[in-house]
This record gives sequence, structure tokens and C-alpha cells, in this order.
Amino acid sequence: MHAAPSIQKLTDELERLPGIGPKSAQRIVYYLLNTEADSALRLASAIEEVKRTVHFCTQCFNYAESDTCEICSSLRRDHSIICVVSEPRDIPPIERTGVFDGVYHVLGGALSPIDGIGPEDLHVSELMARLASSEVAEVVVATNPNIEGETTATYLARLIAPLGIRVTRPASGLPVGGDLEFADELTLGRAIETRRDI
Amino acid sequence: MHAAPSIQKLTDELERLPGIGPKSAQRIVYYLLNTEADSALRLASAIEEVKRTVHFCTQCFNYAESDTCEICSSLRRDHSIICVVSEPRDIPPIERTGVFDGVYHVLGGALSPIDGIGPEDLHVSELMARLASSEVAEVVVATNPNIEGETTATYLARLIAPLGIRVTRPASGLPVGGDLEFADELTLGRAIETRRDI
Repeated sequence: MHAAPSIQKLTDELERLPGIGPKSAQRIVYYLLNTEADSALRLASAIEEVKRTVHFCTQCFNYAESDTCEICSSLRRDHSIICVVSEPRDIPPIERTGVFDGVYHVLGGALSPIDGIGPEDLHVSELMARLASSEVAEVVVATNPNIEGETTATYLARLIAPLGIRVTRPASGLPVGGDLEFADELTLGRAIETRRDI
Repeated sequence: MHAAPSIQKLTDELERLPGIGPKSAQRIVYYLLNTEADSALRLASAIEEVKRTVHFCTQCFNYAESDTCEICSSLRRDHSIICVVSEPRDIPPIERTGVFDGVYHVLGGALSPIDGIGPEDLHVSELMARLASSEVAEVVVATNPNIEGETTATYLARLIAPLGIRVTRPASGLPVGGDLEFADELTLGRAIETRRDI
């Protein structure tokens, strides 16, 4: 290839991003070459700004620009209900549902004996400290519905039970608008087991 | 949404890129937040470097870091055969084939009477100047096989004919490894018309 070195370097860096293959990278490179300098440099400085200003919220370990994140510092959120998630990226999908107005706690992973990840590797003690120091009525454990997520949920439920705080988990079942025919058997089985009166 | 402003800004900038929707943008944002600062900043500085160092080759109008691009300044390329393309992004796919060792000329578009794009809007006069000043044996017009590309190719062929230089066009036909059953009728028709003895 006879690409200029700086073009090759940018292509390489773009290919490192998740979901960006060689063709997408090349398409983006030509877009950036073709676009006015201002617009391309806004992207560069947005990356720099994010790395300079974003840290972990000291309370919930979500990404934050201040000491505490926008959710933890909001007075319009219900601080008596905490939704526990594995990673910060799990928060936006929950926010988009519009049905949860509590606050969050990011564990920074999930329990996995196989990978040697125990409670001490997650922000579990910080969660317990929060539960001890504030009036919390319910903990929704929204870890992923897979082995690690279920293990983590069961562990937390046992740990929290003595405090008399309600521990819940989002329902598993058929996707809304989905097709029963195409549901995998685990999901369909769980949906039938947890069927509700109508 | 309760995302930190700098995270929102980066998401917005990423969504402007071609082929990047809201979900891909969010995935990349979380990747960049999660990765070490060095790696994220390398991408930012690669963008800045490209916008600072890359200009148009004064000879062929491909992207270049020096006065002339790496292909125009290479002594291993055959400078007597010029491949004419619409855009710089058309060059890498041709280079990847490994069958062309000539040089290029980027028009910066294609003729389109409907959009009011005439020869004076493209690097046509610069192409004619190259043909007048150097020993060129063949011009391969590799504009796209669509109306604008064909119009441009026909126009250039007529313009160059008086100079006694051979003007060619890449063959249209069935994609190699493709399935005849799924070929569109235009392509299949062209392939039959231009059939060759075996």
C-alpha cells in the first residue's frame, strides 16, 4: 500500500475501535480527510476532553465529570432505590426506558469463579457501605441474565437480606414485539415458568 | 439522558462519521472511556496529524504529505500509464488488486450536467497538461460504471483522442466468484455483450 504514513496511522487507530473493520476505517479516514478541518478537529478534541475530564463517580462508580455523577447529584432521582449494574455502559439503556428514576451502583464486572473474579474485585463493599449509611428501600440487581450475572445477583441477594432491604431482579421473558417462534428455549422456558395472570 | 456533557459531545461527534449510528457511537465512547488514556489520545492525535500534514498531490490530486504523493514520486511506478479516478478513495481498491503499476490522476468528481458539474469543476485541464508535457502511452479511465462515470469516460476519450494516446476503461461484467443467478440484468447483459473467446 502506498498510503501516506499519517493516513495509515489514522486507519490503524480507527481499526482498533469496536465494530470498525478495515472498510469502515477507510471510509471514516476519507470522510475526515474530505471534511473541513474544524469538524475533524472537534472529534479529536472531544476525545481529549473526555479523557481529561471524565472519572468515576465516587458514590456509584458511573462515569462522571464532577465528584459525583449527574444521576447521584440529582435531587429529582429517588435515592431510596438503587439499581446495581455491571458496567457504566449498562446505564444508558436503562435510562432510555424511562421507567427507572432511582440511582445506580456500578460493580465494575460480575462474579466469575472461573476467571478468578471475586467480590473483592468488584465495588461490593462500597455498595454495602451505601446501604448502611442511607435509607435504601430496594436494590434492583440488573446484572446480565447470564451465569456470571445470575451468580452475582444471588450473592448480593444473600448479602443484603439481613439488612431487611428488598432485593429485586428485572424479569426475564419474551422480548416485547418479538416472535414466540424465534425465542430461544431458555428464554421461552423462563417466560412460561414466570407467567402472570392477565 | 443524564450523560456527562463531554461524553454527550463525543457521542455527537462520532455519530457524524459515515456508517456510525447511535449504538456504534455509544459502543466506541465506552471503549474510549475504558481504554488507557494513551491509546485514546493516539487516535485524537492521529486525526490532528492527518489534518495538519495531508494535502493534495500537486501532480495527481491524490492525498499526499509532501508536494507529490508517494505514487507520483515513486521510481518503481510506470509513469507512462495514467489511471483516472473520480476520488482519492478510489485509489486504494485499485492498489489492492496488485495488477496496476502506473500512476493516477484524481478528477475530484465526475461530469454531471444535472448537478451542474462540468469539466471546469474537475481536474481535467491539469490532466491534459500532464499528457502534453510527458510521454504517456495509455490513460485508463476508471470512473464509476454509472451514468456520471460513463459520461466522464466518453468525454475524456474524445478529448484525448487527437493526442494519439490509447484510452481504455476497466471491463464491466460478472463479479469473479459471484453467482450468475444473482447478477443484475445490466451487468449480465454487459457481460454477454463483451464476451470473450476462451
